[in-house]
Parts: sequence; C-alpha cells; structure tokens
Amino acid sequence: MADTDLNSEADPIAELLISYDELNSPHIDVFDEVPSALEFLRYVARNRPFVVRGGASDWKATRTWNVSTLKRLLKDEKVNVALTPKGHVSHLLKNADSPTLNDQGELVFVKPWEEEQSFDTFLDFVTRQELSSHDLSDAPREDEEIRYAQTQNDNLRNEYLTLFADVEKEIPWARIALQHNPEAINLWIGNSRSVTAMHKDNYENIYCQIIGQKHFVLLPPLAFPCINEQELQPAIYEKEGGGLRMKIEEGAPKVPFAIWDPDRPTENTTEYSHLANPMRVTLDSGDMLYLPALWYHKVSQSCSEEGLCCAVNYWHDMDFAGSFYPLCDLVRGVTLAKSQQSGSNGLQPK
Amino acid sequence: MADTDLNSEADPIAELLISYDELNSPHIDVFDEVPSALEFLRYVARNRPFVVRGGASDWKATRTWNVSTLKRLLKDEKVNVALTPKGHVSHLLKNADSPTLNDQGELVFVKPWEEEQSFDTFLDFVTRQELSSHDLSDAPREDEEIRYAQTQNDNLRNEYLTLFADVEKEIPWARIALQHNPEAINLWIGNSRSVTAMHKDNYENIYCQIIGQKHFVLLPPLAFPCINEQELQPAIYEKEGGGLRMKIEEGAPKVPFAIWDPDRPTENTTEYSHLANPMRVTLDSGDMLYLPALWYHKVSQSCSEEGLCCAVNYWHDMDFAGSFYPLCDLVRGVTLAKSQQSGSNGLQPK
Repeated sequence: MADTDLNSEADPIAELLISYDELNSPHIDVFDEVPSALEFLRYVARNRPFVVRGGASDWKATRTWNVSTLKRLLKDEKVNVALTPKGHVSHLLKNADSPTLNDQGELVFVKPWEEEQSFDTFLDFVTRQELSSHDLSDAPREDEEIRYAQTQNDNLRNEYLTLFADVEKEIPWARIALQHNPEAINLWIGNSRSVTAMHKDNYENIYCQIIGQKHFVLLPPLAFPCINEQELQPAIYEKEGGGLRMKIEEGAPKVPFAIWDPDRPTENTTEYSHLANPMRVTLDSGDMLYLPALWYHKVSQSCSEEGLCCAVNYWHDMDFAGSFYPLCDLVRGVTLAKSQQSGSNGLQPK
Repeated sequence: MADTDLNSEADPIAELLISYDELNSPHIDVFDEVPSALEFLRYVARNRPFVVRGGASDWKATRTWNVSTLKRLLKDEKVNVALTPKGHVSHLLKNADSPTLNDQGELVFVKPWEEEQSFDTFLDFVTRQELSSHDLSDAPREDEEIRYAQTQNDNLRNEYLTLFADVEKEIPWARIALQHNPEAINLWIGNSRSVTAMHKDNYENIYCQIIGQKHFVLLPPLAFPCINEQELQPAIYEKEGGGLRMKIEEGAPKVPFAIWDPDRPTENTTEYSHLANPMRVTLDSGDMLYLPALWYHKVSQSCSEEGLCCAVNYWHDMDFAGSFYPLCDLVRGVTLAKSQQSGSNGLQPK
C-alpha cells in the first residue's frame, strides 16, 4: 500500500515544488548520441528534458549553412519578419510576445509588427546589427528595431521550403515513439538582440541548433505557482513614421502570461518563486534539445562569427490522454484559487 | 502557448475529475496479443490500464494447474495462509486488510491471522468451502473462516518456488520498458469468499489469471477525492478458542485507507464520490491486466469448477522521477486541506 505521510500543517503547493526537486535531478541529462524511440519515450513519460550533443551535427544544414549559402538558397525570396523596438534594455522591455510596460507604466502583452522583407535585406540587417555591437565605430542606432524570423507556422515546409532539403524530414525516434509526424517544423533566424520571454507550448518539442547558440532557462509545468501568471492586456506594435508604436488591442481577450523572470528572481515574485529551480542549458551548433510539453522556457541566443543565430524545431502534438494534463491544470486552479482568497499576488481573473 | 480558460468560480478538484473523464475513455483498452516494450511504455506514460486476452494462455501454469497438479507439485509443503472470519456479509465486514466494524461499531483496519498450513489441508478447505456453497446438503458453517494464500512477499520465488517453473520468469516487454526485473512475483490462491478491499500500490503491476476469474473495479490515482481516505485504527485477528477474535493494536500508527466502496456508491461518500467513474474488468484464465502504479483496485474472484481461483502477479518498481508522483500527492494534499477546512468529510489528521 502507498506510503503516506500527512502533515496537516503543510501547504500542498509548497510540498509539490519541494517534492519534485527531491525526486528529480537539478541537471539536465546529456547524451552524445540520439536515443532510440523507447529511450525517448521514457523521457516523454517522465516529462523530463534532455540534450543530445552533436545530435544534428551531420545534417547538411549544420555543415553548410552560413550567410552566403542561405542568401543563395533564398535568393529573391520574401520572408515574414517580426519587428520590435529596443531589446535587452530591461527584462520588461523585451521583444515580441512579451510582457512589456506601456507608456502608462502598465504591463501589457505585446505582439510584434510583422512584415514581408526580402531575405537578403533581413539577413544583412540582422548580421550588421549583431557585428556592429562589437565594433564601436559602427554602433547600432539607439532606437533601431530588432528583427527576428520566428513565424511558428510550419514555416520550414512553407516559406522556407527551399531550405527543408538540408534538415531531417522528421525525427525518426520521436515519430515512432509519439506515433505521428511533426505537426510543425519551424525555422528561427535572428541575432542576440532577440529574447523569447518565458512561456510554454502544448507540444513535445525537438529543438535543433544549426548556427550559433541558444540559451534555455527551463522550468517544469508544475512550477506554475512560481511564474506569476497574470492576465495581460494584449497590444501590438505598428509601424508609424519609420518607428514602431505600441497599440493597445481594445476589447481583445486578456492573455495569461508569466511575469516572473528567472533571470531577475527577486522581481515580480509570488510567494512560491523562491522555490523554483530553473535548469539552464546552452545548445551549440549541432546540438538537440528535447523540450517536453508544457515546460516553461525562456530563450536567448548568441551568434556565429558572421553575426547569425539559426535553429530548427519539430513540434509534435502532446498526448492529452492520461492524467498529466488535468493534473497540471489542477496546479493552476489551486494556485489561482489560493491567490484569489489571499489577494496576495494580485492575480486578476479573466 | 497553452490554452487557458480560468473560471474563478470553479472548484479545481471537481474540474480535475471532470477533465480526466473528458480526456480519457471510460472503457479499458483490450488487446489480443502482448504488447511490445514500446507499446507498453505508452500506457505507462499515460498511467492507463489495459487487458491482454489470452496473454498467458500458453503458460504451462495456465494449461496444467488444477487441484491435483497443485497438490502433487506442493506435496508435503507448508504454506502461509491468511485467515479472516465471515466474508461477504457486509462491505464493512470484509476479509483481510480491510476497513471493518469492530464490536463498538467503529471502523478499524484489520489484518488477517496468519498461520502455516500444509498445502493439502489449505487447498481442500478452500475448494470444499467453495463447492459446498453450491450444494446445500454440505453448506459451510455460518462462522467458518475464509482462507486466502496472499502473502505479497515474492512468494512465487520463495515458498512456492516449485511452481515458479510453470510461469514466465519475467514479463519481457515490462522488463525492457521499465529497465528492471520484477521486484516481486506473487501467487494468489483462494475462493470466491475472499474480496480485497479497494487500495493502491506503489508498483507497476502485471496481473495474470491462471485458474478461475478475477473481477477488478479500478479508479485512477487522481480519484483520491472520491475514495474517502480515513485514518483507521489498526487491528488484527487472533486465534482464540477455535475462532478468530479481533484485537486492536493499541498505540500502532493509524492506517490511511479508502472507506468508499464503488460497489456501494451511496455509502461513506465524500462530496466528490459521485464524480468517480469506476472501470470494471473481469480476467478469465489466461488473461493479463496491466494495472498502473497508484491505481485504486478492488478485487473479487470466481472459481473454476473445482472451486479454485489462482493468479500470479509481477510487481515492478514504479518511477518516482518526473512529476506524476508529486502531482498525485498534491491531489491528496489539496483534498485533505479542503476537507479539514470545511470539516465536511470528518477526515482525521494523523
């Protein structure tokens, strides 16, 4: 029969966070070859991440992509580019899809301005901006925008189709274990100015670094009590007079989003943030990361010598059967109910 | 980003139970051949049970065991037998390891009297009692005890070692998926008077029916809010004057145990019992059940024409890594905290 030890004084939410850390390693597992489907499924079953060093190092993309090959492969192509002002000034003045302070000092959830650009123009901008930050004689303009190719709409099998031949069509061990093909395969191109705010996705994610580095900060789904989810007013950047201006999306439904940043752990805290133990891992060119469904991840990047960062990820539908999804929802429900009772975190019902 | 729909009015515990039933089938999956390790691991990952009809039908045990072969194989052997009085009179007057009313009308957790008997004597008693219940000319005595060989201590590799050659040494697909050999392999011999009260185990369980039938009533681990766990005073049956007398174990730590019985759904309820949807499945001779770790199970049995029920089960250590175990503990913690606040279920802290 089950081992039980009821401490009626204990806070079940704090117990959850502490018990998880007792039962799991604080470090990410690292392999030097790709797993079998069975080995992979053990990690899916546990909802735990791992890295495969060099797992994508023999891909043609990893071996051959650089500024000149990409320009040749995408010659005369137009691509969708996300534009945001500034970047890195403050963790609350981040790029796209981020909690950001508006002019009135209120935290809003702001989406980027999106536009079509010729791939050449986009790539020249990204690399010039990156390299000029190392070269004071050619410093970037203070108000220059950040550009990031980050459409998460299966873009590698659509607008970047000419690049698709250079990566794996699928991740075989993931397809066999999960029993379906990738729902989306996405290409990401940007520079170190782009930071993706901490969020989660309903997907099993295989993330493959092609050029440069990606820096992940990871938290498991049950860290919900730590991440201070707030219902934020949505906004969007719009182009106006050559610059980007934030426009509130009046009447649009609020967006629930984490406002605690593991890189500024003492700001925007909840009573549980101090119990979070973020895992950190950097992917180098050729490395793979299994990012399990619903894990919180904040992502920043470093560039190659050419000033470029490029990655490809494979999204597989997660399995909503079993008890994991409802249990994650319970963590959310219990946390919100508690903070509504106490009013301590100012969480706003939608 | 995650789909979210916060209803601040909702009870997170009720939401959990309803959402689980929405995302999962009310029926147990049934196969007609044993799974691969990968197929099995998908069920482990989801913590969902399945049945393999005829999965053990070609075992020597299934093909050859009966009263005479068992007596021959265990000739002159002594075995451990659990004795309890009565049986089936009321769901609160059950057999061993059960919530039972004591003479003062209080619910206690009572363990059986255990003794060594010659296997012949034990088997004759079990089958005679079973068959006499069909034959009024030889009716069992009203106060006759129930006997059950049910030591869950790896008995098939110990006291019943002479039988072990007739079953599989291990379940290969379970060993490969779970990466370890069975922690215990147990033999169960009894008749239809023995009912095992609803409980859970910290093991992945492969249950194989050899003779007769086993009837399972199953609930997932997150049904904790429904099963009305109470802290019960432990007791034990002792032999006295030819009969069995219950003795309270003074000073022993209380035993947390489910007192809601899915076969009497309107008694001993909690405010959530009506949201439980028990799954029922009967194993026939040669069938296998995967009973996932921490699932609540109540087990009753039917006999072969010889008046015998016999099963073998393989216990594998469950994986405490990942988030499943801490999340199940959260369900428990939140439920107990709520019932302590409201006092509605009279749950007693230990």
